[in-house]
Amino acid sequence: MADSKLIYLDNNATTKVDERVVEVMLPYFSKYYGNASSMYELGAINSKAIKEARETMKDFFGANLAKEIFFTASGSESANMAIRGILAADRTKTHLITTKVEHPCVLNVYKQLEKDGYNVTYIGVNSAGELNTEELYDAVNEKTALVSCMFANNETGAIFPVKEIAEKVKSKNPATKVFVDAVQAAGKIKLDVKNSMIDMMSVSGHKFHAPKGIGALYVKSSTLITPLIIGGHQESGKRAGTENVPYIVGMAKAAQLASDGLEYEATEVKRLRDKLEKGLLSKIYNARLNSCAPVRVPNTTNIGFEYIEGELILLNMNDYGICASSGSACTSGSLDPSHVLKAMGVPFTSLHGSIRFSLSRYTTEEEIDYTIEKMPAIIEKLTHISPYQKELKELKERKGLI
Amino acid sequence: MADSKLIYLDNNATTKVDERVVEVMLPYFSKYYGNASSMYELGAINSKAIKEARETMKDFFGANLAKEIFFTASGSESANMAIRGILAADRTKTHLITTKVEHPCVLNVYKQLEKDGYNVTYIGVNSAGELNTEELYDAVNEKTALVSCMFANNETGAIFPVKEIAEKVKSKNPATKVFVDAVQAAGKIKLDVKNSMIDMMSVSGHKFHAPKGIGALYVKSSTLITPLIIGGHQESGKRAGTENVPYIVGMAKAAQLASDGLEYEATEVKRLRDKLEKGLLSKIYNARLNSCAPVRVPNTTNIGFEYIEGELILLNMNDYGICASSGSACTSGSLDPSHVLKAMGVPFTSLHGSIRFSLSRYTTEEEIDYTIEKMPAIIEKLTHISPYQKELKELKERKGLI
Repeated sequence: MADSKLIYLDNNATTKVDERVVEVMLPYFSKYYGNASSMYELGAINSKAIKEARETMKDFFGANLAKEIFFTASGSESANMAIRGILAADRTKTHLITTKVEHPCVLNVYKQLEKDGYNVTYIGVNSAGELNTEELYDAVNEKTALVSCMFANNETGAIFPVKEIAEKVKSKNPATKVFVDAVQAAGKIKLDVKNSMIDMMSVSGHKFHAPKGIGALYVKSSTLITPLIIGGHQESGKRAGTENVPYIVGMAKAAQLASDGLEYEATEVKRLRDKLEKGLLSKIYNARLNSCAPVRVPNTTNIGFEYIEGELILLNMNDYGICASSGSACTSGSLDPSHVLKAMGVPFTSLHGSIRFSLSRYTTEEEIDYTIEKMPAIIEKLTHISPYQKELKELKERKGLI
Repeated sequence: MADSKLIYLDNNATTKVDERVVEVMLPYFSKYYGNASSMYELGAINSKAIKEARETMKDFFGANLAKEIFFTASGSESANMAIRGILAADRTKTHLITTKVEHPCVLNVYKQLEKDGYNVTYIGVNSAGELNTEELYDAVNEKTALVSCMFANNETGAIFPVKEIAEKVKSKNPATKVFVDAVQAAGKIKLDVKNSMIDMMSVSGHKFHAPKGIGALYVKSSTLITPLIIGGHQESGKRAGTENVPYIVGMAKAAQLASDGLEYEATEVKRLRDKLEKGLLSKIYNARLNSCAPVRVPNTTNIGFEYIEGELILLNMNDYGICASSGSACTSGSLDPSHVLKAMGVPFTSLHGSIRFSLSRYTTEEEIDYTIEKMPAIIEKLTHISPYQKELKELKERKGLI
């Protein structure tokens, strides 16, 4: 792999670990390797490091108390722990609400819960990817145990009004709990959980330049959950397993760097994303913006290239060292089109050729220029061999190009 | 902390990450950081690394097939996944068997399962720490869904005859599944799961010089389990979450190094352990060997210092830079004496002052000599301030010392 040519525009799938994150982790592998539960100084160094990291994560979530933060091994574990933990703690209610565009780590848990006897309402989105919030509020009833709603969608970047959702849900049923999967929001926009009625919120380190294999779950101090992983006393008895101190320390460093960089995300990353989006849409006649929600995270765009196949586009982009994705990485390998774009009603012609570009603070102007330069030829080549030549001609005609 | 004085004899709590393990992990943080599920080369590098690591782990377990190995984030997660996964896959049987001396990540899951309506038989051990296997075989009946038995005990090092147990259990009920927590055996003795009737076996990387936060679960290809963490397609749909490639690669390296070092464990580590054990028992009159099982892992000894407090001993050892533990790290913080030593019937006089010393391939002769030199003065000082002077005098008399 020629590193010099690598243009990584798939930061919603995973991110490069920041060198400063690696640096703070290193001493905890072979020098300060003690078990945080141990009596001696080598253990105490680790329990102190965890304590400090928990404080940093508290600030990252905008939470009130460090004890509201639990370390996990992933966003998926955090979501499973939140949803199943809250339901196990109170089995009196049988109705659940979530959205049709959640990540599989939420959606597939709900599908399992349906099999277990729960009644689930799945809330849709409009063609721009915005949540049908009125539909959600209408669905809340006295039996609703939990509402799960993501903060930002991984495929479109659309931001959902989670604070408002939590307020309105609780105004209809104060006993209903609210879980927010903030995996794609964390590091891109400010989290501010203390000024909300949200009960639980999950983040994943590897989406903001910490390693893969570390996540966190915020649980409001008044909210009771049972553990998903039972065993030792770690994490206040809520999550067993010897603490992964290097990654805990690393995620805290990454969270602090991300917080410091939010202004840069909102301005420079957004500028480059907008440049890429406009560049591709203006140069490629069969490009169609899928993610046109007015409120989006600054780094994400999702563009459908009509009448061609996403997998083919990605393979051709790989030849130029450009990394992006069709759908989410967690559903790749399957040939089904994205459940998010389907829920938005993205037309069939565009559904299979949709590409998500997701930037980061490492993305440079040169990379964006290069991508804008190379993409038209890739798309043109594939368009040329598309079996939908008649439809493509009609599209050209509609656009006044022929 | 004066590193030069650190004598780490708590390798059953956690181990130093081998520098060669750190080395193989490093490129996966900031260079080969792609998501293994992605279409492009940066993703493929990662999926290839995972595939190779799974092969190595297959050999480490002595399994037949790489697809029988699942990566998790800890030994605790592996145990939870195994036990709960097997029971969720077949809900027709209501009886479970385990031992009284399992790690909390097994024992506490069983306590929860009892609350959920399962009927659990807990098998005891004799005063040497050996399992009452006849009692176990007698307990198996047509309703027995699962038998969980550890390979080696974390506190005493006693090795249980898990191959024989699996055979005898299945001869009584072929439908009963067998799970073996091999966390404290892995890296110390050979695992050889393919030549056994064991259905599932768990290991934890940080017990054999990989980092904390990575584990594995072997599940025989014919054995069906449901996932604990639901979401994406990772790990054949059995464990969701973006793969922690650095740690997966690191654990495989550590497993290979551990396999290469088994002979050294069985000879040199054992020699040093035996030297330490004999040294302390011969020099300290109120020292009592707790772990006298004839078959033990080579690195562990557990010694009770009668009529004094374990926590005090550890604090005094810390002043000399000697790290060890009382009970397991996962139950520390609690003032209850070890459930393992209680199950063995270790007398009250020794129970509270029991210390586990656990060596590794990094342990040197000098460190053992230093420990043998320093411990008598520590114990003597604490014995001097013990409130049990009368009993200590009687002990001395019985030993013919006065």
